[in-house]
Amino acid sequence: MYIIKSIKHMRSAIVVVLGMLSPAMASIWPIPFVYTNGTSNTAANNAQITARSPTSPILDAAIRRYNELIEYESFTPPTDYNKRPPATEGSLAGLSVLVIDDDDETLSLDTDESYTLDIPTDGMAKLKASSVYGAMRGMETYSQLLVFNGGSRFIKSTPIHIEDKPMLKHRGLLLDTARNYYPVGDILRTLDAMSFNKMNIFHWHIVDSQSWPVESKTFPDLQSKGAYATNMQYSYKDVQKVINYARLRGIRVIPEFDMPGHTYAVGLSKPEIMSCLNKQPSWDNFAPEPPSGQLNIAKPAARDFAIDIVSEYVRLFPDNVFHLGGDEVNRNCWKEDPDVRAYLGANPEETVESLLVDFYDKLHGAVESLNRTGMTWEETLFHSNYVPPKNTIIQSWIDEASIPKTVAKGYRSIASPASAYYLDCGHGSWLSNVAGTSWCDPFKTWMHIYNFDPMANITSAKERKLVIGAEVALWSEQSDPTVLDARLWPRAAAMAETAWSGKTDSRGHVRTTKEVAQRLHNQRFRMVGRGIMAEPLQPLWCARNPGACFSP
Amino acid sequence: MYIIKSIKHMRSAIVVVLGMLSPAMASIWPIPFVYTNGTSNTAANNAQITARSPTSPILDAAIRRYNELIEYESFTPPTDYNKRPPATEGSLAGLSVLVIDDDDETLSLDTDESYTLDIPTDGMAKLKASSVYGAMRGMETYSQLLVFNGGSRFIKSTPIHIEDKPMLKHRGLLLDTARNYYPVGDILRTLDAMSFNKMNIFHWHIVDSQSWPVESKTFPDLQSKGAYATNMQYSYKDVQKVINYARLRGIRVIPEFDMPGHTYAVGLSKPEIMSCLNKQPSWDNFAPEPPSGQLNIAKPAARDFAIDIVSEYVRLFPDNVFHLGGDEVNRNCWKEDPDVRAYLGANPEETVESLLVDFYDKLHGAVESLNRTGMTWEETLFHSNYVPPKNTIIQSWIDEASIPKTVAKGYRSIASPASAYYLDCGHGSWLSNVAGTSWCDPFKTWMHIYNFDPMANITSAKERKLVIGAEVALWSEQSDPTVLDARLWPRAAAMAETAWSGKTDSRGHVRTTKEVAQRLHNQRFRMVGRGIMAEPLQPLWCARNPGACFSP
Repeated sequence: MYIIKSIKHMRSAIVVVLGMLSPAMASIWPIPFVYTNGTSNTAANNAQITARSPTSPILDAAIRRYNELIEYESFTPPTDYNKRPPATEGSLAGLSVLVIDDDDETLSLDTDESYTLDIPTDGMAKLKASSVYGAMRGMETYSQLLVFNGGSRFIKSTPIHIEDKPMLKHRGLLLDTARNYYPVGDILRTLDAMSFNKMNIFHWHIVDSQSWPVESKTFPDLQSKGAYATNMQYSYKDVQKVINYARLRGIRVIPEFDMPGHTYAVGLSKPEIMSCLNKQPSWDNFAPEPPSGQLNIAKPAARDFAIDIVSEYVRLFPDNVFHLGGDEVNRNCWKEDPDVRAYLGANPEETVESLLVDFYDKLHGAVESLNRTGMTWEETLFHSNYVPPKNTIIQSWIDEASIPKTVAKGYRSIASPASAYYLDCGHGSWLSNVAGTSWCDPFKTWMHIYNFDPMANITSAKERKLVIGAEVALWSEQSDPTVLDARLWPRAAAMAETAWSGKTDSRGHVRTTKEVAQRLHNQRFRMVGRGIMAEPLQPLWCARNPGACFSP
Repeated sequence: MYIIKSIKHMRSAIVVVLGMLSPAMASIWPIPFVYTNGTSNTAANNAQITARSPTSPILDAAIRRYNELIEYESFTPPTDYNKRPPATEGSLAGLSVLVIDDDDETLSLDTDESYTLDIPTDGMAKLKASSVYGAMRGMETYSQLLVFNGGSRFIKSTPIHIEDKPMLKHRGLLLDTARNYYPVGDILRTLDAMSFNKMNIFHWHIVDSQSWPVESKTFPDLQSKGAYATNMQYSYKDVQKVINYARLRGIRVIPEFDMPGHTYAVGLSKPEIMSCLNKQPSWDNFAPEPPSGQLNIAKPAARDFAIDIVSEYVRLFPDNVFHLGGDEVNRNCWKEDPDVRAYLGANPEETVESLLVDFYDKLHGAVESLNRTGMTWEETLFHSNYVPPKNTIIQSWIDEASIPKTVAKGYRSIASPASAYYLDCGHGSWLSNVAGTSWCDPFKTWMHIYNFDPMANITSAKERKLVIGAEVALWSEQSDPTVLDARLWPRAAAMAETAWSGKTDSRGHVRTTKEVAQRLHNQRFRMVGRGIMAEPLQPLWCARNPGACFSP
């Protein structure tokens, strides 16, 4: 439908043939929803972006940012190496941006990120969007169309018409800043890289058993005793900087305060509300990894603490969604806890399970009363007796099959299966006496990630609509700033395309990794040029010779 | 023997108990051959190194380098975090270095790298070595003994007496600079990192099918047509810079010019001497990976070319050892080559195998006549009818079992089994349509590397002596400058210790990864402080709590 409409507007337009990419489209990642292009080349020495509409500070900042990026960037696709500059049939006069509905700049699941982009063979290119965030997505596409050759800038395959919008509303990246610490600068660079791939959710797994790096005004000792060091902390100012930086790039920040498990670091300042603190050497009876420690669900003070945490941090994190964790709780930790045993002895109608249900109920109730949508790992839904509120967002990680199970129960699902989306996996066990693999080996290659379909085995349209997102995760047992970029990129980009563009093109063809490899090479080399140390996919020879490095 | 002798010289000396490390020794990697230490702490604000003997430019440069390093370094072991500075019983007056036999500064397999280091509780420390290279190893150990706390520098566990020497003469690292290119600066940084781990061989896999980055004066087109780009080349000056930089760190540079396979890039300028150039799409009938291409062994011009290459590069690379490659030749490439078929038709007494034997014979003969020792991958010995000269060094990679097989045949062996020492493995297939694993998965963890014993299953003392080295390899299908440091370090350090110190301590105890983890953490964090982006082993919490992160 889009294609037909577009063709009417364009002379010399050609429709893309299955698996054949025009030079222009070869440089776009993720691939737009629909597009048509011609066969001309346009000189683009003047590529300046200007606003056609009343602007906002957010739009202004985005235009300034992309104008700067365009000014310093000089990306040449590997396939253009040693080729002559193309003959041009016209000159670009810049890009003018129109945002139709400028009023509501709140970022949420309902934000409209769609845009249309028209690039003529000669004259002014036009970008139209319903929101400033859609405009940013369009500017990113525009920046990717600009390629260098022999000291000059071009847009190939003009005229170009693009109508674009995301398939999934939540295209996320989780970073664990607790097992190892990442300076704010690393997080900001990651947000930049996400924006290059039209990702829109930074899931900040900010605390865990190993450390509590974030400032707390309610309980200052959480940070002073729980952070790794005074220079390994996130102050309120740091957090606000991250949130603002993200917002300017159309990225929501969803904080996760994981409770009641994964909380050893809380015990450094509040041992009185904890169970099974750092049991050694048999930590494996109490926790999935050392150090063990869980909030003591038999103690009202532990529940109050959890609610205080939510109450404090909903004020710091403006996003509508608040992640409560809820993963990997260990029942034995509580069963062996003397306080829990005493409580259960005095209250024979209670069990560990009923205490846990009560804990979840209070916590989710607090989130609701604070006007937030709760998000939680799948265990809360599948491995406890608790029934979360129907609007809770359930994040799957244990099993790909829990995505269809989640939506079958009527809950919204975020797909983060460890088997496909855990970017830290594949580096073997990290326990010092284990020379073998880890539970989540092998390494998830970009092809494996690209092939995964969050919608697999979900046929009903209603249930497919409940799969609202996909999210890659970088857990930090074996990651820290030294490896951040290479662990994330370009593999997170592989997910980003399937989440934005879907697995299938407008003709119903399921894209293959062999077809998209050239575009991902381009995206990877472009990201390296933009300062992101994305790892290489293949020898440079393969990037220059598309289709030559595959298994026959 | 060493221990007893040392004790005589030292008051309050204690001998190390199995698995228990003094604070001083916890900061040394690789662990010295034998050592004793006391229980005092020495202030080390004055840690300046001076020469006691007539110096040489190489020794001068090493002293200057370590004095600079000591001046800027302020390493605090993770276990000392938030601890008070120790009480001191004396002050260091610096380190004086004596090189006994200063005359021959040639680097070779016979270089004596031993040293003795004495650090008193109070006064001047003394380092004695037979060669400038042994002195460097001792200065490295000395630099690692210096730790910071609360703004001051200390040496703990004084007095210290160390007598150290390597178990293996060849402790190598292979870098493939052909599949992807590494700037000279990356190589120099890698040489620094090697010296921090007492490694002494840089095996420069400098050319391969994908590119020919090195300048050739005999055939300038090899580089102009075979390098990836004009800024992706190694000029003679660059190579000399690498060799000199390496020599100043006691590192030999062994060049590899891999022939007759892995030579597609030669065909870009000399197609007339090649077979099966870039067969597509069925490259797998002709080569282990794309692009296919081998020197045409039926053509005298190809043999002459190979000999010309050796003749040119023995002049550029002064090391006594010259690596000829010889791996992964594909017989079918020649069997289907029209020239080879015509030749064999006209010479029915010849076969592909006899041509290959003749090629090897000419090439190894040329190396010998140029006063070099040939080195070659194991296929030359095991998978061809050729019998290499007895002094040829055989590098194993296919099978751990080929190490004992090599020495049983009386050849010297370098252990580089892919199953243990290939640092690039574990990232899955890199072919764009394969979502699964690669032949050399999984990832080799540092524990797996540490556990590998190059001497395994070799019992005769004579044969064990023929295992002269161990070498880790970084092939570059999925590596380039973005990931160099993290792919190499600290895993190469795990091999470096087993190659320098052996698997067994002086009491016959086989070291376990659980025991050495704390020292490797220290080495990793020290390397990061020295500018090497070594990947993390565990959460920082584990580095601060030795023994808490293992499988019970």
